[in-house]
Amino acid sequence: MRFDEFDFFIQHADVNLYYATNFRAINSAFYVIGNDGTDLLIVPDMEKERAIRESKVREIASYRDLDYHEIRRELKDSRRAEAEMIVRLLKNHRAKKIGIPFEFPAYIAIPLHQNFEVKVVKSPFLEMRAIKSREEIEKIRDTSLATIKAFEFGLKVLKREKSCEIVRNRIENYLYLNGYIAENTIVSSGKKSAIPHATGGIVEDHVIIDIFPKSRKHNYYSDFTRTVIINENTDIIEMLKAIIEAQEKAISIIREGITAKEVHYAVCDVLEGYGYKTLRQKAKEGFIHSTGHGVGLEIHEEPRIFENETILKSGMVFTVEPGLYYKDVGGVRVEDVVVVKKSGCEVLTNYRKWIKVS
Amino acid sequence: MRFDEFDFFIQHADVNLYYATNFRAINSAFYVIGNDGTDLLIVPDMEKERAIRESKVREIASYRDLDYHEIRRELKDSRRAEAEMIVRLLKNHRAKKIGIPFEFPAYIAIPLHQNFEVKVVKSPFLEMRAIKSREEIEKIRDTSLATIKAFEFGLKVLKREKSCEIVRNRIENYLYLNGYIAENTIVSSGKKSAIPHATGGIVEDHVIIDIFPKSRKHNYYSDFTRTVIINENTDIIEMLKAIIEAQEKAISIIREGITAKEVHYAVCDVLEGYGYKTLRQKAKEGFIHSTGHGVGLEIHEEPRIFENETILKSGMVFTVEPGLYYKDVGGVRVEDVVVVKKSGCEVLTNYRKWIKVS
Repeated sequence: MRFDEFDFFIQHADVNLYYATNFRAINSAFYVIGNDGTDLLIVPDMEKERAIRESKVREIASYRDLDYHEIRRELKDSRRAEAEMIVRLLKNHRAKKIGIPFEFPAYIAIPLHQNFEVKVVKSPFLEMRAIKSREEIEKIRDTSLATIKAFEFGLKVLKREKSCEIVRNRIENYLYLNGYIAENTIVSSGKKSAIPHATGGIVEDHVIIDIFPKSRKHNYYSDFTRTVIINENTDIIEMLKAIIEAQEKAISIIREGITAKEVHYAVCDVLEGYGYKTLRQKAKEGFIHSTGHGVGLEIHEEPRIFENETILKSGMVFTVEPGLYYKDVGGVRVEDVVVVKKSGCEVLTNYRKWIKVS
Repeated sequence: MRFDEFDFFIQHADVNLYYATNFRAINSAFYVIGNDGTDLLIVPDMEKERAIRESKVREIASYRDLDYHEIRRELKDSRRAEAEMIVRLLKNHRAKKIGIPFEFPAYIAIPLHQNFEVKVVKSPFLEMRAIKSREEIEKIRDTSLATIKAFEFGLKVLKREKSCEIVRNRIENYLYLNGYIAENTIVSSGKKSAIPHATGGIVEDHVIIDIFPKSRKHNYYSDFTRTVIINENTDIIEMLKAIIEAQEKAISIIREGITAKEVHYAVCDVLEGYGYKTLRQKAKEGFIHSTGHGVGLEIHEEPRIFENETILKSGMVFTVEPGLYYKDVGGVRVEDVVVVKKSGCEVLTNYRKWIKVS
């Protein structure tokens, strides 16, 4: 990896570090890459052995190796010492311009800024992660299939239960025993469903079920939503029809080369055609979120599918999830995960869109 | 809350924001507190309703309310626009000195640093979280009792199974169905257990079981480790005897007013007395980690129990977990969670320390 904008890039311990190094950091860790050939993973002393075993990075240094303990005795402050350790390392490498990711922690970012020319950028690993390898797609497919099974199980529970909370719990337990973790699963009903991230309450006219588990084995997520009709509610049924049409329209145009904005606007066009309001019109009710987000090692990652000009590439995996939300009626949402292909896309969460339980 | 070192403090979306506001942020969110009386939670547009419902903050502003969309059109960059939105807000409040937490994201920290006098500090909420209320202690007790039940269940599994991975999975499933999530549970055996965070492998002479689940209901963690003897291994048994004595010694001196360092050194004294090496002696094998860490909404939080001068206060909850690790022999560790009291401490994970399964 070579950089144009800077000569060194430092990644702190987050999912990008895991993706880049295969090392699962428990405390802090830093991955330093330089145009001078530096390829160095820095880990706490007690993690060095595990880092050597687990990571794919050529060189591993412990804090001790980088004189952290001497610096800490000198500065009498563990955070300042950590920052100073990294500043000294980069000075030894004659670094001038340093790239750091958006979320890089301030206690090191500011000392770096005081010593070097610092550019805060989108992590290059975030960009790499947006395009999935065949193995990654198979992992997301695996989680997607488990998600659909859990949804079908949830439908059975919904026939007997009147509490969204119980339905949610049963779905999450089912997933867990099959090797997947789902947290914050959304099961919402009635007018409460007008708040996109609300959950719980009594089962009323319709139920939004939004499940986004990750595999406990390979750590890849999927994300799937259906709106289930329980009793006839004309407003909800009309909204759901429009949402399904908007989603199908968006999916039909997705292929390599078009932009995220084109996908988002395809959704807006259909919804506005039915007289619903969208964010494009600065609406506060109606379609008030983006069309989708990348899915992989994180539940929300690149690419974003909104008003951005991001050009879709083969291997990108993201959700297509239009929704409509009105305080006086409730919300509806339908969501699938797709993989971009040369001349179209493949839906990884293939499942019927009209579902009625009574 | 009034500050001396600065006139405004900004907390980004992490567990401290949840603790301070009761709002569970899904995307970004900022909590701004000022000596001028400012008490403001900033959330994405679509989260405003939920923030009003869930949070205990007086004033809620959406990005829209703070002119984010106009700024974004102006700057043509969503990250820069977010930073500029916060800079403008603080300028409107005539802020001069801003406090931000260590982990505050660089894309906002650096613009703040360019516009104000910035101090990067330990989040005041982190300090507050170190001392638990009675309700919080009951939540940690609840998770502790569930953890011990899961450990006992694990012992039964260990009688039949020879794979650490299976034992680990069964323990995690058991916890999940009872309302707790455990990730990265450690079940390690033989020489592999010499790496403190290693897991998996075949059950050999002894097994370290380290379980640290959080409640799915109230989100509080516990943390519990026992070393189980399977077959006689004199080295391991001697190490375990020393560790249990060191842990009991440390627990016997814990009370309000003593320092973290005194607890840590009590452990070192016992272990060094038996001829084992410790970090105090700059050892690379032996007792190579700290004595403990706070437990609460995070598995690792304040206070740290190491060579630090932190004075223990009533209501602090932390682990006491000495361990010994030798590559050619393996590792042992025993861990309990304690609450500091005026004249002693209470062990929340009360369970016998000598355990043999065959």
